[in-house]
Amino acid sequence: MTWDILNIIGTMAFAISGAIVALEEEYDLFGVYLLGFVTAFGGGIIRNVLLGLPISDIWNQNMLFTVAFITMTLLFFIPFHWILGFKRLWGVFFDAIGLASFAVQGALFAVMAGYPLSAIIVAGALTGTGGGVVRDMLAGRKPLVLHQEIYAMWAVLGAMTIGFGIADSMWQFILLIVGIVALRMLSVIYQWSLPTRLDWFIQLRKLKR
Amino acid sequence: MTWDILNIIGTMAFAISGAIVALEEEYDLFGVYLLGFVTAFGGGIIRNVLLGLPISDIWNQNMLFTVAFITMTLLFFIPFHWILGFKRLWGVFFDAIGLASFAVQGALFAVMAGYPLSAIIVAGALTGTGGGVVRDMLAGRKPLVLHQEIYAMWAVLGAMTIGFGIADSMWQFILLIVGIVALRMLSVIYQWSLPTRLDWFIQLRKLKR
Amino acid sequence: MTWDILNIIGTMAFAISGAIVALEEEYDLFGVYLLGFVTAFGGGIIRNVLLGLPISDIWNQNMLFTVAFITMTLLFFIPFHWILGFKRLWGVFFDAIGLASFAVQGALFAVMAGYPLSAIIVAGALTGTGGGVVRDMLAGRKPLVLHQEIYAMWAVLGAMTIGFGIADSMWQFILLIVGIVALRMLSVIYQWSLPTRLDWFIQLRKLKR
Repeated sequence: MTWDILNIIGTMAFAISGAIVALEEEYDLFGVYLLGFVTAFGGGIIRNVLLGLPISDIWNQNMLFTVAFITMTLLFFIPFHWILGFKRLWGVFFDAIGLASFAVQGALFAVMAGYPLSAIIVAGALTGTGGGVVRDMLAGRKPLVLHQEIYAMWAVLGAMTIGFGIADSMWQFILLIVGIVALRMLSVIYQWSLPTRLDWFIQLRKLKR
Repeated sequence: MTWDILNIIGTMAFAISGAIVALEEEYDLFGVYLLGFVTAFGGGIIRNVLLGLPISDIWNQNMLFTVAFITMTLLFFIPFHWILGFKRLWGVFFDAIGLASFAVQGALFAVMAGYPLSAIIVAGALTGTGGGVVRDMLAGRKPLVLHQEIYAMWAVLGAMTIGFGIADSMWQFILLIVGIVALRMLSVIYQWSLPTRLDWFIQLRKLKR
Repeated sequence: MTWDILNIIGTMAFAISGAIVALEEEYDLFGVYLLGFVTAFGGGIIRNVLLGLPISDIWNQNMLFTVAFITMTLLFFIPFHWILGFKRLWGVFFDAIGLASFAVQGALFAVMAGYPLSAIIVAGALTGTGGGVVRDMLAGRKPLVLHQEIYAMWAVLGAMTIGFGIADSMWQFILLIVGIVALRMLSVIYQWSLPTRLDWFIQLRKLKR
C-alpha cells in the first residue's frame, strides 16, 4: 500500500518531467507520451534487463500506465505558466520522491534476486535515474543527472544502505526514502555538487601564473 | 511467403535509410554497415529484449542479413544523385512498407506471447520505429520519428488494431499494412503532423497582445 | 590466467578512457565513475543481453569492478598533464589490448553458446567497442568508433577469424590478439582509415568542373 502510493507519486513526477522535456524540444503529442513513458518506466525496464529479472513484470503495471497516461494528457492541455511554476517548485520535490522510492525498490529487487553488492548498487541507481538518462538522450541532451546538483549519488547511497543490510524492514525503508528526499532537496536548495576536476584545473592555472 | 516479401522490402528500405544517414554524417564504410544493420534489425532486437522473447530468433535471419549486406554494399558504390533521387521518391514509400509490416509483425509477436495491450502497443511501435531511433542516436541526431510528419503513431494505430482483436487473419493483416502505408504516404504528401504545444504557445502570445 | 591479465589491462584502459571523456565534459565525480564503468563493462553487458547469455555472469566480476574503481579514483587525483601524456602514448596501446582481448573473448562466448556467424561477429564487435559507443552517447558525442582511424573493423576481423574456425586454441587466440593490437597501432600511427564516400564526392565535384 505504501509502495503503491510512492509509486504513483514517482510515476506522475517522472512522466511530467519527461513530458516537459518533450515540450521544450518542440516534440509533438507522440513525443510527449514517449518521453513521459520512457522517463517513468525506462529505469525499471533497464534494471530488469541488466539484472536478468523477468521482463513480463514490467507489462503488468496497468494502473501505473494509466496514471502516467492521464497525467501527460492533462499536462498537454493545461496553461504553460502552470508547467513552469510546477517545474520550479513541486516538480523537484515529487521528482525526489520518485528518485528515492524507485532507487530503494530497485535495490530491493536485486537483494531479493540474490545479487551481490555491485548489482544492488547498479539496480538502485538505474531504477532511480535510468529513465531520466534515456529521456535526455532521446531529446539529444547530455544526461542532466551527470551535471546538476547531486542526484544519482543519493540513489547510490540508498542502494548501499540496503546492500549492506543497514535497512531491512518497511519502516526503515520509509525512513531511508525520507532521508534521500531530504538530501536531494537540500542539494537543490544549497546547490550542493560533487567535486569536479574543473575547480582543480582552475587552481592549477592560478599556480602557474 | 507474404511476410517474407514484406520483410525483404522493409529490411532493404531500413538498411538504405541507415546507410544514407551514415553517408550524410561522413561515417566510413564500417559506419555505413553498422547504421544500416541497426536500422533494419534494431527494432526487432529491442522488442525481443523488452518483451523477454527469445533473442536467438534474431540471429537466425541469415537471408535478411544477406539482403541488407548486399543492399548497403551496392549503395556505397552507386552514383550520389541516385541516392538523393531514391530518398525523395521511393525511399519514403519503401520505408512506409517497412514501418507497416514490422509494426504489424511486432504486435503479433506480443499477442502470441500472451502479453497485455500495453506491451502489444510498445512491441508494434518499437519494431516499426526502434531501429530508426537507435540509428539517429548513433548519428548524434534527435530522433527523426519525434519531429517529422506523423510516423510512429501509425505503428501504434496498427498495433492497437491487432491488440483489440480487430484484425486477426492474414488478409486483414495485409489490409492493415496497406492502410498504414497509405496513411503514412498521405502524412508525407500533405505534411500531416500531430498537435504540438508550439501552435498553442503562439496562440497564447497573440492573445496577450 | 592469461585471460585474467588481459582482462585487467583492458578493464583499466577502458575505465581510464571513460573517465577521461567524463573529465573533458566537466562531469562530476559520479560521472567519472559512471562513464568509466560503462566503458569497461558496457560492451559485455550489451553482448550478453543481445545474445541472450545469462546476465548474472556480469555481476560476478568483483575483481574487475575493484580494479576499475581504484583506477578511476587514482585518475581523479593525479595531475592533469599526466592524463594528457597517458592519453597520447600509452592510452592508445592499452586501449588496443582491451579492444583485442574483449573482441576475441566476446566472439568465443558466442561460439560456445552455439550461435551462427552473424551473432559471433556482432558479439566480438560489441564486446570490443560497445562500451565506447555508450560512453560517447552518454557524453553527447558522436561515437568515436565511427569516425576515427580503423577501430571496430579489427574487432570484426578478430571475430571472423574465430567464427570461421581459423583460430581455436589458446596460443592462436594470443597470436590473434597480438595481431589485432599491431593492426590497431599501425592504424593510429599511419592514420589508416576505411573508405568514405567523402573522397568520392570530392572526385565527383572535380569531374564536374
